[in-house]
Order: sequence, then structure tokens, then C-alpha cells
Amino acid sequence: MLNPDWKPDASSPLPVYKQIEQYIREKVLHGEWPPGTRLPSHRALSALFGVNRSTVAAALNLLSASGLLEGNRGGGTVVRSGPLEPSTSAVKAPIWMNAADEGIHYPNLPVIQTINRMEAASGVIRLGTGELSPELLPHGSYNQLLAELSRCRRRLSYPEPQGCPQLREAIARHAAADGIRASAASVLVVSGSLQALHLISVGLLPRGAAILTEKPSYLYSIHAFQSAGMKLIGLPMDKEGLQTEKLADAAAAYSASLLYTNPTFHNPTGRTMSMERRMQLLEQARASGLSIIEDGAYNELWIDHEPPPALKSLDSEGRVLYTGTLSKSFSPGLRIGWVIGPEPVIGRLADIKMQMDYGSSMLSQETAALWLSSGRHEAHLVHIRSRLRERRDHLLELLHRFFLDIAEWDKPSGGFYIWIKLTVTVPLRALFEAALAEGILLNPGDLYDRNDRQHLRLSYAYASAAEMNGAVPALSAIVRRLAKTERQES
Amino acid sequence: MLNPDWKPDASSPLPVYKQIEQYIREKVLHGEWPPGTRLPSHRALSALFGVNRSTVAAALNLLSASGLLEGNRGGGTVVRSGPLEPSTSAVKAPIWMNAADEGIHYPNLPVIQTINRMEAASGVIRLGTGELSPELLPHGSYNQLLAELSRCRRRLSYPEPQGCPQLREAIARHAAADGIRASAASVLVVSGSLQALHLISVGLLPRGAAILTEKPSYLYSIHAFQSAGMKLIGLPMDKEGLQTEKLADAAAAYSASLLYTNPTFHNPTGRTMSMERRMQLLEQARASGLSIIEDGAYNELWIDHEPPPALKSLDSEGRVLYTGTLSKSFSPGLRIGWVIGPEPVIGRLADIKMQMDYGSSMLSQETAALWLSSGRHEAHLVHIRSRLRERRDHLLELLHRFFLDIAEWDKPSGGFYIWIKLTVTVPLRALFEAALAEGILLNPGDLYDRNDRQHLRLSYAYASAAEMNGAVPALSAIVRRLAKTERQES
Repeated sequence: MLNPDWKPDASSPLPVYKQIEQYIREKVLHGEWPPGTRLPSHRALSALFGVNRSTVAAALNLLSASGLLEGNRGGGTVVRSGPLEPSTSAVKAPIWMNAADEGIHYPNLPVIQTINRMEAASGVIRLGTGELSPELLPHGSYNQLLAELSRCRRRLSYPEPQGCPQLREAIARHAAADGIRASAASVLVVSGSLQALHLISVGLLPRGAAILTEKPSYLYSIHAFQSAGMKLIGLPMDKEGLQTEKLADAAAAYSASLLYTNPTFHNPTGRTMSMERRMQLLEQARASGLSIIEDGAYNELWIDHEPPPALKSLDSEGRVLYTGTLSKSFSPGLRIGWVIGPEPVIGRLADIKMQMDYGSSMLSQETAALWLSSGRHEAHLVHIRSRLRERRDHLLELLHRFFLDIAEWDKPSGGFYIWIKLTVTVPLRALFEAALAEGILLNPGDLYDRNDRQHLRLSYAYASAAEMNGAVPALSAIVRRLAKTERQES
Repeated sequence: MLNPDWKPDASSPLPVYKQIEQYIREKVLHGEWPPGTRLPSHRALSALFGVNRSTVAAALNLLSASGLLEGNRGGGTVVRSGPLEPSTSAVKAPIWMNAADEGIHYPNLPVIQTINRMEAASGVIRLGTGELSPELLPHGSYNQLLAELSRCRRRLSYPEPQGCPQLREAIARHAAADGIRASAASVLVVSGSLQALHLISVGLLPRGAAILTEKPSYLYSIHAFQSAGMKLIGLPMDKEGLQTEKLADAAAAYSASLLYTNPTFHNPTGRTMSMERRMQLLEQARASGLSIIEDGAYNELWIDHEPPPALKSLDSEGRVLYTGTLSKSFSPGLRIGWVIGPEPVIGRLADIKMQMDYGSSMLSQETAALWLSSGRHEAHLVHIRSRLRERRDHLLELLHRFFLDIAEWDKPSGGFYIWIKLTVTVPLRALFEAALAEGILLNPGDLYDRNDRQHLRLSYAYASAAEMNGAVPALSAIVRRLAKTERQES
């Protein structure tokens, strides 16, 4: 997990391998890299430091000779855990190094870790990224909001854990426009809707609970529920969304009491649940006692026509907990999302949120409240909907030209994603690696369904038209090359 | 957990009891108060709505008569869980109501919940609050920062989960001034240092791990570790801080591999660990293989003289994870704290932070980076140190006048707290309630040590001198009254 942000200075009189040796020596001697720390591979270090591998080898050899580093059984290099001097033989290493592997919470999936690391790299075309391109974000308005806020007097104290009243009222009004009836007391402000899932997982469910969801599902790409000891039960989808006829049976078979669904512009498939299906879902939930988490992250981002109403707007029993966010439209960096639900449930979640981070940034909350209540949000949505339409149509056209004979897809009517199904056989991991080697970052389907072998989640929200023009033909060529290899091997 | 923010309109032609009836009816019919929701007591509702109890009773009687509410076994009132109409008898209630009691994470302690609620009320004198008074927070500088930021161009995208590089560099420089050697790669930005404890609890420790700490300790007032299944083992303190001679034995007896300590201006006792004791602690930790979390929240807030160096500055093995915060000096509402430690450990915590909230608010991070790197922070500390000195001396003088014969205390040389030990017998719960009835909010000692029966944590950071002038004599009178009752009863 080391991620050095240092590079040797080529203009220094000290040879580069000596600079690297000194850098690592200081990291070890000052405890930043304690005994047992695994070093990245020679190849990775040479990339990180921008030097060739023999230079890295020369530096590591010096460090091994002086006893600071040693080889481990896996063929890698680690910081030496034995005593450096005989006199310190009674010293026991701190627990951290093993403990990090023992912790309760799962690490991110390796592919997700790679995606995160590569998203920060320059020159990579992000063809799967679930966020708006920087060019679609409202930089000017954002600075206007800050200028307005710089003229306000405020409390700098601890926030109300449930969220500042002005923002909760603005969210309640915003939700009312979508037919969701909620007072400010029914709203919890969270630091992005991912946090909402985490709070729900530790706040509302017994350990070992089963959670029903669509398969594929965004939930499989994160560990919010699994790390809290929950099981995910994936249910099949069709073009109208989650299939509801088996819902009651699945709920009974797994003693599940909760369903997570993303009915509108579903991540990753882009599908939208029909109105009829929504009514069936609520009916089934009533009959089987299921509660529902409705992820409404993409609801506002329709392109062709407004989607059917949110499940929450059809719920008069307090059966649905609705999550919304500003990350998909305004600013992901603001970290503002919300949960709308029954007041006692919101109170319980607010109590846990207080124990975890004492409430979300007041500055983010103030900015979000001003953004929503000033009318800027609606105007901005009109703008990005038309930009998303252009981008979607552009990507569809490219797919039509370069993927027609090797893949299938549906046209999404909103959200960010096209879920393409490859009709030739290509190992997804090899495809991910080969694309990355050509500077194209993909979200393979197995992130959303462990057994998936043939889908990619493409996004038209992030990459520019010019980037798509380069990446889509390149990706098509990679798929054809790998499919050919696969045929020859089988 | 209901916390209605609505009040009836006295100028409306509709009688107040009818307004209350309509308000509750709508809450129930729209699912904001689902079946099973427990209503607050008549007394609490009359306080919340600002009406007398007979008015509340009239409204609730109407609602019970129409079948929306019913009594529960405990003598309270709940939203009726049975079907309202025979035709809907197949409907099963959503899980939320029970599930909220079943969730993994513990709720806040009841006294903490009361304190949180009352802190938001007006007219309450907060004599125990662990934060700076609003009059000590830098409102003007804060607005200058926002004005500067409104002229910057920024990325509005998702943050780097570990924290934005500019802030991590500013934190590393800030820590260097305290002798802590850390590069930006060794720093994790968190949404307040409470979040750091939560990340450590689920990220670095196996379930059931034992954690050593001072007794009393701030850790007992929160559930960060207990909710993750950890056990706290409290060790005795003396005037030099945590007693180290029994440390190795305790570590062995409980198989503990981690110690949480707040060595400088300790919460709640105000004590500071001596230099000699710090050296002994590190020696013991080395001998017994203990890792250390050092909570440095109050380190900068010295009043009389600089405290001994942080444990982290004496650590060259990566044994200490150090947590710091801007909440105690600059703005609690910004929600910015940090962890400094070995890079692999920081990487593991950043990976989990990403899964929980995808990184802290970028706007808060930008503000914090500008605050720290502009030199404003140091100038502000000089200012608040002298204000804290005045406040501490004022509270000590009041204690001397009103508590000399009924309590003992030490003079703290920094931080926020005076830990007073009552030398007369007074039940702490009764004292808390009696003080609250007179508008004085206290932090009783049993929040920090379940078995404590005689301490109060007073704070000179929040209440004004005028408020202290009123509250301290009043509190003295309450203690004397309760002590007398106690003597008569025994």
C-alpha cells in the first residue's frame, strides 16, 4: 500500500541510486516504513521514481547489505523486522503490519484499487468513470457561492449531526418536486450517499442479515454491507428492471428483510424500472414485509424524458429509505448526500453519524443549501442533460461503428452508463489490463456481479468526445485481438 | 428519537389541539411516523409544541379514538401497528422499527443524547462543553479564507481518499513544528479525529481485541471501539498521567496490543504526562509489543508553558499513530482532523475511508490548507491561549470561592478541562438533572469511567465569564442541597 510521492532530483550531484537509498533509509529509520513493510516491486518502484530498474536494484542492494531490507518468502522485499543492533533485541515490533490484514473491514477489490490509482494518473482515458467530466461541473457558480458565503456570518461550532436545518429544508423542498413528501425532520444529511449505506449497515441491521438487490448491482463493487457481516442476494433483472415475481420467495428463502434497489438509470445497466414494475415491487414488499433502500443517485439525470416517479413518492408506510446526492450533478468533492425516511429511523442514523464523524462539513452544507435554494441547481440540470444527451449519442454512434458485430447494448434514457455485452469470448481481466496498457481505464462487469464474464460498464459522462473517438476504436481492436487469442487457445 | 421541529400556530382559527392532531395524523399517514413509532411523553410533547399537557392529551385522545395511535405496555403511546382497514390485513410492517434496536452499532449513551439535545437549546449554560466558545473562533479570518477561495480555480471532482496533497503537506509542516517527522505520504486527512478512531477500530484490529487506555478516558464516553466489538481496559493514572509500571502486565493479561492515550491536557482530567513518564511508556511499549494511538487534540492549547514533546516525536519505529484536529482551535464545523503514522497503515486507513465516505469535503480541506499555510493558525493560537488563561483563572477563582470545602481539583496548564472531585456524597445523575433544571449543562464523571461517583468535568472553554459567575454558585448550592438530602437518607 506504499504510494511514495517523491522523485529523485536528476540535477543533484548525488547519484540517483544514492538518493533513492537515502530516501528509503530515512523512511525506515523514522518509522514511516516500519519493520515488515512490503516494498513495491522493482518494476513499480522504477515507475514511481521515474528511473530504470537497475538503478532501483542498486539502491535496494545497498539497503539490504546494510541490514535495513530483506527478502521475504514471496520473492519481494520487506523492511527487516529483526533487531538492527544486538542491544535492542528486546524490542517487539508494533502490531500495525499484521493488524492491517486482520481488521474487520474488507479492503477495496484489487481492480477498484487499480482504478482509483489510475484515475489520479494523467493521460489516462477514463471510459468507465461514474462522474461528470470536469468540463460539465459549474466552476463559476461554485465560486459565486463561495463569494456569497464569505459575506455571511455563521456558527463555526460542531454541526447538528442530522444536518443543518437550512440544508435539510432545501432537500425536503427539492424532494417534494419529485413527489416525495418529507419534512426537514425526515432528512439526514450525509457525506455522500456511500456513507448512507455504511450507516444503514451498522445502524439498522443485525449481523448476518441478508440483503436483496439487483444482479448486477453497484453494491457488489463496494463492501458497505459485506464488511458489516451482511450477505448480498442478487436477483435477476430484465429490461423493466428488477424481476419482482421471485421477490417474495427470495425474501422467505433467505429470511431477508431488506431490498436495495437503484430503479432509475440503474448502475451499471442503465435500465429504468417501469411504473408497472414499481407498483408490483411495492406490493410484493408489503406482502413479504420487506423494507426498501431506494438509491436515487441518477434520478435527475434523465436525457429523453422524465423517468417514472421514485418508489419513495409512492410510499405512505415509511417502507422506503431514499438516498440522494449532489455528487452526480454538482460537485463530488463537496461530499453531500442525503437520506429521507421515517423520522425514528433518521434519528437512529443521525445518532450513529454523530459517533462516526460528528456531522458533515458545515461549509459543504452551507454551500449545498445555497446551491439548492438559489435555483442554480435546476438551471444546471437543464444544461447537463443536454450535454449528456450529446455524449450518450456520440458514444452510441461509436459503438455502432466499432462494436456492432462483437457486442450488444441498450440505449439508456438517462444516467451515465451503457452496459455492453460482448458477444465474443474475452477474459475480462486480460481486457482490463490490455486496455490499461493503452491508457484506457475500464469498469469490467465482474465488479458488479462476481460471475459476470462478458460485460463492460462504459460511461459517457467523463471522457470527452475526442477521447472517446480514440478509445472506442482502440478498445474494439483489443477485444478482437483477445477474442482471436481465446479462440486459438480453446 | 422523534424530534419534531414544528409548533402550532396560535394565531390560526383552528384550535391548537386540532392543529396538533392534524400534524400527527399527516406524519402517520405519510409514513414519516410508521407503525410502532414511539411518541415522546405528554410532558415532552407539551415542551416541544409549547402548549400545555391537556392540549396534548386532547389531540392524542382524538388520534387514539380514530385508531391511529394506541397505548403500549410501557404506558407510552405508539403509532398503531395493526391494519387500519380490514382489507389491508395482508400488509406487513417494514423492519425499520425493530431493526433500529438490532443494529450493530451502539447508540450514544443516554446522558450524551441529553447533552447533545440540550446543547442545541437556547438559554442553557454549557459548563462542560469540550469546544471553544463562539466568541473565540476566528469568524473574520474564516470569511477572508472563503473570499480567497472564491477567486481560485479548483477540481470539483472526487477527492483523493487520503486527503488533498496541499493539506497533507501543510499538516506535515505543522507537525514538524512539534518535532513530528512525517511526509505528506504519512498523513491521512479525516473528517474530525473521531472518524480516525472509527477507521482504526474497523481497519486495524481483529474483533474482540483489547485496548488499553487511561481511566478515566474520553474513550468511555464514545462507542468507536466497543461498537466494533473491542474491549476497553482502563489503567490507573496519577498526577504524571497514565501509570506505566503495570502496563506490560495488563498488556499480557488481556492480550492487548494497542494503547490509546491522551497524554497532553488529558480529557477529562486535564493532566499532562511528564517527560519521564513518556520515556517509560515508550520503553514499556517496546518491551511488550504495544502499538500506541496518541490523541493530540489539545497539544497546542497550552496556557502556562509548552508541554513535553508528543510521543510521536519520540517514536522512530512507527509504533505511534498520532491524531490531530482543527476542531479544538479553528472550527469544529469544518470537520478536519488527521492521522500521522506508518505509510502502510495510513494506506490501509485511506482505503477504508474511501469505502465509507470517499474522502473528506474538498472545500473543508482547501480551507484548512489555506488556514494552516497562511500563518493564520499560529497567530490565532497566540490569541486563544491568552483568552483560555483568563477563562481558566476565572473558573479557578470561582471554584475557590464556592467549592473549596466540598471539592478538590488540580490546576490544568492547558486544554479545556478542570476535573473536580466532590468530597461530599452526591448522586451524579441527580446532580446532572438538578443542574439541568436550573439551565446548567454538566458532563458527569461517569461518562469517562462507568464506576465514577464523584467527579465532574468542567470546561472553561465554552461558557462566558458572566455565565460562569451565575452557574458556579448555583451549582455549589445544588451540590450542598443534594449532599444534605443524601446524608439525611443514609
